[in-house]
Amino acid sequence: MQEFEAIQQFFTRPTHADLGIGDDAALLQVTAGHQLVISTDMSVANTHFFAETPAFDIGWKSMAVNVSDMAAMGALPKWATLAMALPQLDAPWLQAFAEGLFACANDAGVGLIGGDTTRGPLNIAITIMGEVPIGLALRRDGAQVGDDIWVSGTLGQAALWLQDKQGLIHLDVPARAQYAQAMHRPQPRWQLGLALRALAHSALDISDGLLADLSHMLKASHVGATLDWDAIPKPDTHRVVLSQQALAHAVLSGGDDYELCFCAAASQRDAIGVLAEQLGLPLRCIGRITASPGLTVYADGQPMTYTNKGYDHFA
Amino acid sequence: MQEFEAIQQFFTRPTHADLGIGDDAALLQVTAGHQLVISTDMSVANTHFFAETPAFDIGWKSMAVNVSDMAAMGALPKWATLAMALPQLDAPWLQAFAEGLFACANDAGVGLIGGDTTRGPLNIAITIMGEVPIGLALRRDGAQVGDDIWVSGTLGQAALWLQDKQGLIHLDVPARAQYAQAMHRPQPRWQLGLALRALAHSALDISDGLLADLSHMLKASHVGATLDWDAIPKPDTHRVVLSQQALAHAVLSGGDDYELCFCAAASQRDAIGVLAEQLGLPLRCIGRITASPGLTVYADGQPMTYTNKGYDHFA
Repeated sequence: MQEFEAIQQFFTRPTHADLGIGDDAALLQVTAGHQLVISTDMSVANTHFFAETPAFDIGWKSMAVNVSDMAAMGALPKWATLAMALPQLDAPWLQAFAEGLFACANDAGVGLIGGDTTRGPLNIAITIMGEVPIGLALRRDGAQVGDDIWVSGTLGQAALWLQDKQGLIHLDVPARAQYAQAMHRPQPRWQLGLALRALAHSALDISDGLLADLSHMLKASHVGATLDWDAIPKPDTHRVVLSQQALAHAVLSGGDDYELCFCAAASQRDAIGVLAEQLGLPLRCIGRITASPGLTVYADGQPMTYTNKGYDHFA
Repeated sequence: MQEFEAIQQFFTRPTHADLGIGDDAALLQVTAGHQLVISTDMSVANTHFFAETPAFDIGWKSMAVNVSDMAAMGALPKWATLAMALPQLDAPWLQAFAEGLFACANDAGVGLIGGDTTRGPLNIAITIMGEVPIGLALRRDGAQVGDDIWVSGTLGQAALWLQDKQGLIHLDVPARAQYAQAMHRPQPRWQLGLALRALAHSALDISDGLLADLSHMLKASHVGATLDWDAIPKPDTHRVVLSQQALAHAVLSGGDDYELCFCAAASQRDAIGVLAEQLGLPLRCIGRITASPGLTVYADGQPMTYTNKGYDHFA
């Protein structure tokens, strides 16, 4: 199988672009009155996923982490390009990868409009594009003193799966299956992102861990925050032997769950509650934006001593 | 040095986007009446460049091949994202890489608006975006029977450098220096691309070799072509011992020169001659589009038997 045949067979599907895969570049039109929203994420074997991860899951997650960036901006995801390096042209692997990638892309309404394939160590680079009405994007620099801090879903499941995989903890079979789902098939919260345009001051997705990502928002907004450990939605670990330190690490610094963290005025609490019902997605208020800088997590009224702030690829 | 510091130090420069590096995504506005033009290219160590290539050149060329895709569409290049995997955070290497990348980007007016860095085997994935007035893009499916076929610059220099590097031929020192420039610092022809909007029916950039790339245009346009070997601009090889086969391979299938190949009506010959003068860039008419399918190169009135059509990363 040749390069162009593989692209044609697995990756060329109809899109709503003016010109898709097959030319030197793709052509599209941005809706009048909207900004284009662009993000890029690269996934590398042995850094972002284990080489033995099923190809469907690698395809799903490669797209999901990009859609999640659109969610974090309140953007409607629409188009993506895929550049990938492959050790060899393995048709069954590529087919399963493409099925996973398109399963996630189709869920989010994203069309694949361009790409590049080459030989090399497995590497998947996706650039995603979406739209937002001018001025309505959920930026990191919008958090205001007194805002509630919210998160969607549950934090730490993907990190616990990883700790189990590394032999640091032992999950029972049902928990392992549930947390594997969180790790390999994260559900990007783009519908939540769209709804938050009207409700939130600021948002981001939690890819590197709650504390690390929230710190970026606080820095950009020139504010601080306090969090309530008890309010943070944690995995159901009643069947798992787990130290408090391991749980705190997973929940506060684990990342990879791709939930949204957002700030909103206290006056929006009822509306956010209604939204959670509509989406069938738990939304929990976990803290407050403060004028004084810094980020402190309180448990039982005392600051937690846990300090690990997040993941640095090169630390 | 940490990941975020490295990004801040080397890759964050002012751009004309609404929001650049530092949020979950970038924001930009496309000029009214224009289409967004998007392309992505991935460069991998040992596939696209030798690991010992100077970092400045790797940075330059990674951007240049993307700008070249804008040129091939007649698009004005404007924005780019950079995703890269690095074996380690080597600050001097990154600084030189960034200097090369921005040298090329600045020449073309491109601002870096987003990115992602991660640990992994060296891999550089750039997505470039530009603009073209609606309907004026130079697509591959626009070639018309009777059109002249043109190329810019000189073909085959980069391929000869590679043949020398591989010990297949022996270049003298001045030729090696000249051809190394073609290989490592290709000059993307975006000014030519802009001017061709008004003159050409179809265009592409020659990345995989003249015959391979032109074949894509012929297939998309449902036409054929004849080329005149003597008219094709070839490297000055009077000091190099070179078989006809090696020269033909370099010129017809070598790729990596990133010159433009375009089709235009015969009535545009004078205008194209004027354009070549204005740009200080040779533009040579090398053949003709035919109604009958196929692609034949004639030398001394006879079809050449040379058949190698181009580069396939997985062949």
